[in-house]
Amino acid sequence: MNKFNIIGEALPNIPWEEKPENHHAPVWRHSQNPVIKRNPVNGVSRIFNSAVVPYEGKYIGVFRAELVNGRPHLHLGWSEDALKWDIDENRIEFVDENGDPYQPNYAYDPRLLKVEDTYYIIWCTDFYGAAIGVAKTKDFKEFVRLENPFLPFNRNGVLFPRRINGNYVMLSRPSDSGHTPFGDIFLSESPDLTFWGKHRHVMSKGGDGWWQAVKIGGGPAPIETSEGWLMFYHGVTGTCNGLVYSMGSVILDLENPSKVKYRSKNFVLTPEEWYEEKGFVDNVIFPCATLTDADTGRIAIYYGAADTYVGVAYTTVDEIIKYTIENHEDIADDNELGK
Amino acid sequence: MNKFNIIGEALPNIPWEEKPENHHAPVWRHSQNPVIKRNPVNGVSRIFNSAVVPYEGKYIGVFRAELVNGRPHLHLGWSEDALKWDIDENRIEFVDENGDPYQPNYAYDPRLLKVEDTYYIIWCTDFYGAAIGVAKTKDFKEFVRLENPFLPFNRNGVLFPRRINGNYVMLSRPSDSGHTPFGDIFLSESPDLTFWGKHRHVMSKGGDGWWQAVKIGGGPAPIETSEGWLMFYHGVTGTCNGLVYSMGSVILDLENPSKVKYRSKNFVLTPEEWYEEKGFVDNVIFPCATLTDADTGRIAIYYGAADTYVGVAYTTVDEIIKYTIENHEDIADDNELGK
Repeated sequence: MNKFNIIGEALPNIPWEEKPENHHAPVWRHSQNPVIKRNPVNGVSRIFNSAVVPYEGKYIGVFRAELVNGRPHLHLGWSEDALKWDIDENRIEFVDENGDPYQPNYAYDPRLLKVEDTYYIIWCTDFYGAAIGVAKTKDFKEFVRLENPFLPFNRNGVLFPRRINGNYVMLSRPSDSGHTPFGDIFLSESPDLTFWGKHRHVMSKGGDGWWQAVKIGGGPAPIETSEGWLMFYHGVTGTCNGLVYSMGSVILDLENPSKVKYRSKNFVLTPEEWYEEKGFVDNVIFPCATLTDADTGRIAIYYGAADTYVGVAYTTVDEIIKYTIENHEDIADDNELGK
Repeated sequence: MNKFNIIGEALPNIPWEEKPENHHAPVWRHSQNPVIKRNPVNGVSRIFNSAVVPYEGKYIGVFRAELVNGRPHLHLGWSEDALKWDIDENRIEFVDENGDPYQPNYAYDPRLLKVEDTYYIIWCTDFYGAAIGVAKTKDFKEFVRLENPFLPFNRNGVLFPRRINGNYVMLSRPSDSGHTPFGDIFLSESPDLTFWGKHRHVMSKGGDGWWQAVKIGGGPAPIETSEGWLMFYHGVTGTCNGLVYSMGSVILDLENPSKVKYRSKNFVLTPEEWYEEKGFVDNVIFPCATLTDADTGRIAIYYGAADTYVGVAYTTVDEIIKYTIENHEDIADDNELGK
């Protein structure tokens, strides 16, 4: 019997592999990674940092497609098993709230999730610099771009899968106009997805370990569990030859998610395999989505690898929450509320 | 008879000096500048970048007081004539919306204005980095701090003196966590001063001249006129020995103030006098407030000089609007709406 539970729907056809024997870490890789390789479809050089959801018994995804001109846009993809993907050669065409065509100058690092009866895409868009873009769809045919929730400069917008105390809640990572040598995670609320406020600091970079010393940023939409909101995020460290992106785990308070309950002091996945170590940007693991099965507690994590591939990793709600609690660390500023 | 009018109240006791003969520029200095000098009151080393309003037939102000420990806080001041100021030795004490004490870690560059029956202070506050703080008062005795309107990093929050199309409107200048080598002016709306959105780009740094090449930032609350919102702002250029801050003028569309109507290609005030050229930070003119008299069209501009003094300068609504229109320049990105 499980100690911790996912609060959500069953997903019997979730991709899954059991944990390998003698594997100590709480997260393990899909054996046939990467699930999306270079040149996946005509005109697209690399796909990575992408998000998937269950849809009508199968799967649909929004993919960061780096085109053969080096510029990123968002492409749809479809899959029976969430492992083998058919990617659209054409980018998603958006309309604005008046129904007029709207196309971002670039779009990258999408998150995708369902809130109530609507699917939302949150991505990094161009608003005189990097900022958060939001669009909604009910049918994956019409995509309506909403107002930008925040001023620039910002990245890693992550919407929660339900309203909390009546408001939509979004995490983001204020940044600068370049490669941003700093960054903490903040939270904002909205009654209507147009106007945002009640901004709170959630988590700081830093801690006793060095893997998240430079900056951190939200990852997949948080998973509601019996212990709190389980979130995977990326933490970045610096080296003489550039940045290294690993994945961490944190549990936020269910009703007040700007409050950190437990935050793992250790990464739970770090670049080790050839497709994580080498690519367009070496040494990057960048999680953007999860699939979850509430019946079994299984979690499949979708992550970008080396800005070149999509990888899948697995854990269970029991395994990751137990690990996060047993290895948790209180990091300065994480729980200074209300500032 | 005036061609252009201030839409607002009469202020017969506005400080005033006529334009000196043979003065070509559209703005001229008060002859007894600076009106606030070094060590204005016990414990305060310098006052600059501050804001004043008419109040009960006299004047009241919120001042950036750089204490003798080098840290800025907000102090009240009172004046009969808006030129000779009595500054409070103690900082403003805020409460939060529950009535509990709230004190910012630091507070600088205040703006102050009345919207409907309430006075608002907008300043640069500490929110894990520079961000916009807002507080309200009706009596200058109780100061209630409101929610931070935006995520960090941001400076130069400027509220409009009335709602536009039903919403409060605020300008701001997204920045980075340091001295910010870039910066444009954006606009945001709020139905309630808690939740903000509909963010729009207003003005870019740059242009044919070099005085605003590095960054720009909002100044005093915009003045409603028959021609549009008249706003003074600061523009910054770089030299081998640091930044130089001048003052510019712009007219924004009355009903859609993210639209620039006319923007002066030239500065209208630049550091020339000893108190502007030399001080804690050399070569800074930083306007934060105006007083206006709708009957005569007179405008008194309050500006920080060299991060050390408060200066006053004068113009008229006719003179400055005529100059801004006759010397206007269309600058790239200033009127790309709706992005």
